[in-house]
Formats: sequence, C-alpha cells, structure tokens
Amino acid sequence: MKLSIVKIGGNIIDKPASLNQFLKDFSTIEGAKILVHGGGVLASELGKQLGVVPLMKNGRRVTDADTLKIVSMVYAGSINKEIVAALQALKVNAIGFSGADGNLMTAKKRAPEPIDFGFVGDIESVNTSLIQWLMDAGLCPVVSPIGHDGNGQLLNTNADTISAELAIALSDLFEVDLYYCFEKHGVLNDVKQENSVINALSFNQYETMKEKGSIADGMLPKLENAFKAKKVNVNVNVWIGHASRCLLATQGKAVGTQILDQH
Amino acid sequence: MKLSIVKIGGNIIDKPASLNQFLKDFSTIEGAKILVHGGGVLASELGKQLGVVPLMKNGRRVTDADTLKIVSMVYAGSINKEIVAALQALKVNAIGFSGADGNLMTAKKRAPEPIDFGFVGDIESVNTSLIQWLMDAGLCPVVSPIGHDGNGQLLNTNADTISAELAIALSDLFEVDLYYCFEKHGVLNDVKQENSVINALSFNQYETMKEKGSIADGMLPKLENAFKAKKVNVNVNVWIGHASRCLLATQGKAVGTQILDQH
Repeated sequence: MKLSIVKIGGNIIDKPASLNQFLKDFSTIEGAKILVHGGGVLASELGKQLGVVPLMKNGRRVTDADTLKIVSMVYAGSINKEIVAALQALKVNAIGFSGADGNLMTAKKRAPEPIDFGFVGDIESVNTSLIQWLMDAGLCPVVSPIGHDGNGQLLNTNADTISAELAIALSDLFEVDLYYCFEKHGVLNDVKQENSVINALSFNQYETMKEKGSIADGMLPKLENAFKAKKVNVNVNVWIGHASRCLLATQGKAVGTQILDQH
Repeated sequence: MKLSIVKIGGNIIDKPASLNQFLKDFSTIEGAKILVHGGGVLASELGKQLGVVPLMKNGRRVTDADTLKIVSMVYAGSINKEIVAALQALKVNAIGFSGADGNLMTAKKRAPEPIDFGFVGDIESVNTSLIQWLMDAGLCPVVSPIGHDGNGQLLNTNADTISAELAIALSDLFEVDLYYCFEKHGVLNDVKQENSVINALSFNQYETMKEKGSIADGMLPKLENAFKAKKVNVNVNVWIGHASRCLLATQGKAVGTQILDQH
C-alpha cells in the first residue's frame, strides 16, 4: 500500500494564499497520507513580539524554556489547528498530532555536547501500529514538530527529521513516497540561481557539494534526512521541491530534485 | 460501560503543582475517560503580554481574530500538549483534540445578536463513532475548547459546554459521569463563604438562587450546562467540586455539589 508523507516548510505556512493552494493540492493526493509541518518563521515572529530572540546554530533553533512554550503554542496550537480545519473543509479527515498524542513518537533530549540545543529532541521511536490504525480508519495525521520523552517533557523536534523518521519506520508497512515541499524549486547547483535546480541528486554529488560549501544552511538537515531515509530503505522515494509544484510528482511528473541512492 | 468526562478549569491549570496532583488523580480513574480543559487565565496572560486586552461578557470571552489565535495557541498548543505529555508519563494513553481533529465536534458561529461574541461557536454535533473507536483502543481524549465549523473556521468554544455536550451525545453509548473540577469546593450557598457548599442542588433551588443573584458569573454557564445534561438524560451523573477532591466521587465518596434532576 502506498503512503505519501509530505513535509511543508515554514516559509510557505506563513503565506495564507500559498498555504491554501498547497493544502488544496495535498487534498487531491489519493490513498494514505501524512502531512508534517514546520512553522519556524511564525514562531520567530511570536518570539519577537514576546521579546524572546530566536538563536539558531547550524540551521536549528536553540530551545530554552520560553522558546519551547512558544513553539508548542505556534506549531501544535495555531498552525496545526488551522491546517487541520482547512483540510477538514477540503474533505480530508485530518487529525492533528504532536509526538505526545497517542505516544505517536518518543524523542530523546539531545546531549548538551558539542552544542547545547536546550529542549531539543531526536526521534527514538515511532508508534507504527497507531499510524496503521489511523490509516485503516481513513484519517490523515497532521504532525507538528513537537516531541515528548515519555516522562512528561515536551521537546522541539526538527520537522524534516520527523518526516524522514516516519518514512523509515513506515517503510516496512507501506510503499513510502516522501516529499519535502518548501519555497525553492529543489536543490540548487548555485544557491544564487533559482533556476539551477538539480533534477536528481546522488549521495556522492551531495557530499561534493557539501565540501564545496555550496549547500545553504537550511538545506543541510533536509538533505541529511533525505539521504538517511534513502540509506535505510532505498525503496523510499524522496523528492525536494517547491510547494506549488512538488506534489505533481504524485502524478508521476518530474519536478524538483529527486534523491538517488548511495551509488 | 462507564465513561468519566472530567472538566478541569483554568484556575487550576495555571498552577503547576495543583495541575500535577489533579492529573495524578485523573490517571487513577478506571475505565473509559475524557478530559476537557479550559485555560482562560493563561490565555488572558498571553493576551496581556501581546497587548490584546481580554473582553468578557456574561462570563464568556469575546473572541476577535487576534484572540482566536491566542486561544488556539494556548488551549490547543501549550496547555493541551503539556497535559497530554504529563498523562503519557502517568501511563494514560492520552491524545489531544480540538473539535477539528478527526472532526470530533462541529460548532456553529454564534449569531451576533443580542451580543456579538466574535469567533465563538456553539457545539452542533459530536462524532460519537470516533470517540467509541478511541475508547475501544484504550486512548484517552484530552479536549481543548477550540471548535470548527467544517468550513475551515476555528471557533472558541466554552469548555463547560463541550463537557456537557459530550456527556449528552455519549449518554446513549455509555453510562456517563460528568465532573466539573475547579478552584471552589462546589456550588456555594453564599459566594463569600467558601465552606457553604451545597451538597446536592436541584433545578428549582438553582432557579431560585439565580433570581436572587447569589450565583457568581463563572458559575452560571457551568450550572446551565450541568442542568442541560441532566435534563436531556437524567442518567448522566454530574458533580461540581474542587480539583483536589472532586474526583473522589469516582470512588463513590460524597464531595462537592451533586446536580439533581429537575424535580
């Protein structure tokens, strides 16, 4: 059985018209599907309004207690519920999740060395039987990037990583297609040239580009996760592309960057 | 089959020690259970930090677009996820909900006359088959008071009303006990005397007290809802009491105020 896992990034979520069009496209995907969303831009905005300045290291947010509250509110509260309500209006039986809900995903607080990211977690386990059960019931999980450690602590968890970990965990049960949708048309050969999209990227090419420093900050965790999913199970198909076009790949069209396996 | 529906109020939620003790007590309730929470105090605090002043009419918040965003963040985001994570640590398989998630509850935006409450909704329907399915799976819904209209609009919905509507809708499928837990020891004969708790309150007594003006603002919707649930199905048992003691009623102990039927 086919399962589409779609990640939508923060730079689309903060633009209502783009988000609405994206959700319309998402609603037309047939079969089992999961939507994973970020929301960093809106979290930073709220943080600024509240006088909490976002601190980023290696493209990832450092999460102190105040920031954890902000991301819980923005990701699992307003963004998640607005998306779920919009999908319900589009006749998708969406149901919002954090990792804590139904124990969907447990995460482990990251060690404070070499960089202390604060209340940031890495996914440890995915509750695949819960997801199977949701799929059987025709529900569509909408996953916000908030994890929990099973001991009552919420943890900020990277949405790109969640998407890859879901793809990996579910690849035994489903034929998984993973889509990273954001504001670029794919992985760019030259970050200054929007039209320099690489149609297919191998791990070797990626390594070379990384060494040359030609991959921008936010793209690093995305590609790291994409190749991780591909490494664990080469049958997971991964695309990276623009929110307005990436889902055309569900119709077999060549769009954005397709991730190739290690060779 | 027995179902306990428990409402916990905003004046407990904002006190971590009280909330933790309450959740411990809640975790010991045997059988099917649903937790409904408010969070008005924390929403007002965030609103104040953001320069949005809360406006109340008849004990209910007036919800403009900014306020809707705030309550979505606070109720469905931070409070809901903190409670779910805490219950997971207590080995309750909690799963957070707004009305939009899985289309749990649809609400209708309240008519602007006689008072325009803004984005406030009244419950129209409850997805009882979804709840039955969650109960069969051993999940415990934790419901935040955010509804949706099915057309993509989130609506602020009173948590006391949600609790009563859930009790009414589920009373055909379950033997429902409904607990309103808050910071008072029950309905007070004299609002200035904390120890003047009425052990059992009939509808006639309530009407008389209301006429005399001896029921405080926040208690009005609670009692209105309690008697509504009782009127629709006299087999729904309703208690109102302090968060630290009200759940003792699950063990058959007499605590707080028990709501009697119409006679």
